[in-house]
Amino acid sequence: MSVLRLGFVHIRVTDLEEARNHYTNTMGMKVVHEEPGKLHLKCWDEWDHHSLVLEEGGVGLVKLGYKCKSEDDLVEYEKAAQQFGVRTGRVSKGENLTVGDGVAITLPSDQRIELFTDIEYGGTETGALNPDPWPRDQRGIAARWIDHALIPAEDPATVERFFTEVLGFHAAERAITNPSNPELLGSWLSCGESPHDFAVVKGPNAKLHHFAFFLEDWNAILRAGDIMSMDDVSIDYGPTRHGITRGTTIYFFDPSGNRNEVFAGLGYRTGPDFPTISWTEDQIARGIFYIQRELNDTFMSVFT
Amino acid sequence: MSVLRLGFVHIRVTDLEEARNHYTNTMGMKVVHEEPGKLHLKCWDEWDHHSLVLEEGGVGLVKLGYKCKSEDDLVEYEKAAQQFGVRTGRVSKGENLTVGDGVAITLPSDQRIELFTDIEYGGTETGALNPDPWPRDQRGIAARWIDHALIPAEDPATVERFFTEVLGFHAAERAITNPSNPELLGSWLSCGESPHDFAVVKGPNAKLHHFAFFLEDWNAILRAGDIMSMDDVSIDYGPTRHGITRGTTIYFFDPSGNRNEVFAGLGYRTGPDFPTISWTEDQIARGIFYIQRELNDTFMSVFT
Amino acid sequence: MSVLRLGFVHIRVTDLEEARNHYTNTMGMKVVHEEPGKLHLKCWDEWDHHSLVLEEGGVGLVKLGYKCKSEDDLVEYEKAAQQFGVRTGRVSKGENLTVGDGVAITLPSDQRIELFTDIEYGGTETGALNPDPWPRDQRGIAARWIDHALIPAEDPATVERFFTEVLGFHAAERAITNPSNPELLGSWLSCGESPHDFAVVKGPNAKLHHFAFFLEDWNAILRAGDIMSMDDVSIDYGPTRHGITRGTTIYFFDPSGNRNEVFAGLGYRTGPDFPTISWTEDQIARGIFYIQRELNDTFMSVFT
Amino acid sequence: MSVLRLGFVHIRVTDLEEARNHYTNTMGMKVVHEEPGKLHLKCWDEWDHHSLVLEEGGVGLVKLGYKCKSEDDLVEYEKAAQQFGVRTGRVSKGENLTVGDGVAITLPSDQRIELFTDIEYGGTETGALNPDPWPRDQRGIAARWIDHALIPAEDPATVERFFTEVLGFHAAERAITNPSNPELLGSWLSCGESPHDFAVVKGPNAKLHHFAFFLEDWNAILRAGDIMSMDDVSIDYGPTRHGITRGTTIYFFDPSGNRNEVFAGLGYRTGPDFPTISWTEDQIARGIFYIQRELNDTFMSVFT
Repeated sequence: MSVLRLGFVHIRVTDLEEARNHYTNTMGMKVVHEEPGKLHLKCWDEWDHHSLVLEEGGVGLVKLGYKCKSEDDLVEYEKAAQQFGVRTGRVSKGENLTVGDGVAITLPSDQRIELFTDIEYGGTETGALNPDPWPRDQRGIAARWIDHALIPAEDPATVERFFTEVLGFHAAERAITNPSNPELLGSWLSCGESPHDFAVVKGPNAKLHHFAFFLEDWNAILRAGDIMSMDDVSIDYGPTRHGITRGTTIYFFDPSGNRNEVFAGLGYRTGPDFPTISWTEDQIARGIFYIQRELNDTFMSVFT
Repeated sequence: MSVLRLGFVHIRVTDLEEARNHYTNTMGMKVVHEEPGKLHLKCWDEWDHHSLVLEEGGVGLVKLGYKCKSEDDLVEYEKAAQQFGVRTGRVSKGENLTVGDGVAITLPSDQRIELFTDIEYGGTETGALNPDPWPRDQRGIAARWIDHALIPAEDPATVERFFTEVLGFHAAERAITNPSNPELLGSWLSCGESPHDFAVVKGPNAKLHHFAFFLEDWNAILRAGDIMSMDDVSIDYGPTRHGITRGTTIYFFDPSGNRNEVFAGLGYRTGPDFPTISWTEDQIARGIFYIQRELNDTFMSVFT
Repeated sequence: MSVLRLGFVHIRVTDLEEARNHYTNTMGMKVVHEEPGKLHLKCWDEWDHHSLVLEEGGVGLVKLGYKCKSEDDLVEYEKAAQQFGVRTGRVSKGENLTVGDGVAITLPSDQRIELFTDIEYGGTETGALNPDPWPRDQRGIAARWIDHALIPAEDPATVERFFTEVLGFHAAERAITNPSNPELLGSWLSCGESPHDFAVVKGPNAKLHHFAFFLEDWNAILRAGDIMSMDDVSIDYGPTRHGITRGTTIYFFDPSGNRNEVFAGLGYRTGPDFPTISWTEDQIARGIFYIQRELNDTFMSVFT
Repeated sequence: MSVLRLGFVHIRVTDLEEARNHYTNTMGMKVVHEEPGKLHLKCWDEWDHHSLVLEEGGVGLVKLGYKCKSEDDLVEYEKAAQQFGVRTGRVSKGENLTVGDGVAITLPSDQRIELFTDIEYGGTETGALNPDPWPRDQRGIAARWIDHALIPAEDPATVERFFTEVLGFHAAERAITNPSNPELLGSWLSCGESPHDFAVVKGPNAKLHHFAFFLEDWNAILRAGDIMSMDDVSIDYGPTRHGITRGTTIYFFDPSGNRNEVFAGLGYRTGPDFPTISWTEDQIARGIFYIQRELNDTFMSVFT
């Protein structure tokens, strides 16, 4: 396991100032760098330079960056990806602001991910010397960090296979049509101990379903919902509990229509020996929205 | 203020055994008396003999019982009700199991309420000597008490006037069409310090919208939602926050289709000098479901 | 029951600027009026003009103000108090800022309380038209309201009798030496539906043990504790749960040494028919600090 | 990182039946195997055969078992440990019930740890097919898993060096005398993403300070505290917040005097690139008990 975590999300937004307002005043991120048409932001508990890049013009995913442990790993991942048969390329230091050399991969489902090891250190807002447990002057929802992303894919099984065989992820949970002759409908994949750092569900290629901000617990989810109401944020679904991952959640949209999630709770601690959980097709609605056991239309049909 | 609280709810259920399972195993009530076609139940933190009567045959409200402080008050309420112009009658001791003499009133919107002062003392499950804060052997959702009921009325203003002028309630919150020439759409009325012991909204006469169980807090709401999923309870809406009362909530149905609510949170402390809160028509969805700011169809159209 | 609630607490502080910092930046109150040597403050969810008066010079209680429903009640309370045999006097409109005529009473234990009905209306910070559940720009602990006060008395039984017989309070909980031949050690008295608006325990006359700020729930208690650490507030005891009232709590001191409490949770709903809970002497430590079942020295010996 | 987590804790207890009652009825574990003088237990969310071994006779630590990813790793760890200069040995399959071959290491501070890769699979109580988020029939505190252990050492720096250099742990937080010429007072070490899987503080060799059970959140901590009071468990300290790890906590003793902790909260997500947090000596009390900023005597002096 040398992929450490989702390092950054890079998306397009139709209006940069509306997006700035949403991600700073509502979500509580901080702008760490700005240039014409582009903003770099981070959450208060993240120590890398940034975790979100907003680029003006359109909507949807540009790419996901996954941080890895060592440069040797990058080389191995590149080789394994080529053997797997996906398109790869090199990313030079500085192409991503403050980020070192990396490897670009076009997933079998056509989204772009980039692997990197170096990024400028920014430090968390509580610091590394006798820190308080949270910063006194929090903004809005005060999201702690960007936690995971979920993408749709016409063939989720191949994407899952890529993440497990090439990048060493393990599936914490899987949704399948039926146990006897299963077709994969979705997979929640971890590169460490949290339930998912990446997930894929059946849907159109080259799109994003959502990326998620981590919150402390169910109380923080309520507070987030209150702030979304105060700030007129468009809700997709929630608050509720996920069966899959046990997390608690609200799905909502940024002003451009990119879907965000606030996700809370260390549901369980996973790892390479974690017994992968299976959800059968008849129970998938319960797996997604555990309390209501029903899926709403927008959640199933809106991708950006 | 001598109406103390909602004392009991008496409803019809289509199947008594399904209802028993719902109100005991899911909601956590205890059967305190049973006879053919009828069950009397109470919650663990209630000390009166019962708070819920289930009668087999059909669905919907039979009556609401409000407990009053003194018998003198009953006489005064009866007189005032007659002057108000509603139908009243006497209830003899024993007509309601273990309940003393009372006054029956047909509301202007045709629901029946009964006022009483005496009911057999049952004691809470934690007792009155060196009690634990909660009983160790809780069942299911472990609802604390029945808290309030909401009824629809073709003319909610007259029902509100009845509760304030005759019974001494005060409106904690009111929903109106617009501030300049207001028509009343709903009123949340308190006989003491909690935000509401009774509420009325525009809708058909002679029906019930829901009655609510009190839970400790937002965490208990999540736990309740989890149990509803485990027990295949049909959810109407939630979990969410109310703007009106600030409470947190899930609406759901018992197996017969009577709507229940779990309601949590001492949003504020009201009283006769509480400055009544107004909600204007354009903000009512936010008043009802604060986070989502949208009303679902069933919530607005299903009455029993 | 026409005493509505604890209306204001008036205390002495050694340094007004330190006290201002504590009650505003840490506790989250707002200064509504200031004059040389004196501050008037209120919490965000209180609608009366003020709930706390700080007077420079010394430490300890000046008086407690209890708000009543009607002026007729004031006259009756005055008469009953005189018959009870305590010293009473009249308070003229304006003696307390924005407060109307009132009655002053010297308790049998020598603390001064004042009863009043009128006080200037200030409004809560969320307002009375389509309000949010909490104000977006909260300060520090963001206490909701001042909830109750506890005083020591050499003869708590007489103080209890005064509050029940003269002012119509009811004892929600009582601590006694032993059930067979009980001596009263403490009484938690309510004028409405909350577990206590006033409490008395055995101790020296003419002193204050603490006054309490109401918070939403156990999560707000943790957040309050965190802020006390950030602001170097001196902790007396907690966080913990009370057996008595079921509330959750932290006791701490303002910079002058006056003991404050943050208290959370609607443990139960009381009323005139509430079955008074008894705690026996051997269980009192558990009644006070339910989890630890031990009392600390300062809690038992520091009065101001 | 191929040490996965703390796999089991093996301790001595003076009375096996008292211990059984504590770890099952109070803590919520389940006995998975019993034989004369010995019990094997697991928590509801653990899938390995057991996580706790109780052996009758005395009190204190027998050994800690850390689960590793592969047998190749065991060989490497053994070699590295020998080079480090600690005593090592081989553990044969079956010496620990259902556990495969392993490596025993005597730490520089004389506690015994064992590394292993195989242990019989037991499954969690919610299962791996369409699972509920928690088991409906929970017992007592319903601890989720055993999370970490803390040992004292005369020379904590050498123990820290052993865990980082030999076993690949990284220090999430460190307590030092002063930044300019630091002596190590304590180290909180992670083998994955949680703040600590092992910790060491200055103290006597060959002893245990505590081992900890993981709970969901601060609400679960309160519920645990309530149950400890109901079951007359001896509390050492808490509930409170840790500055170090940000976790919330209660320390308490099992009937034999072994110290347990309930620990909650995913304070942050660590990893090899986590910027190690330093606590200076003057702030250590705040680091340990963040709210109170004071250490109690028993916490500092009782080791078993």
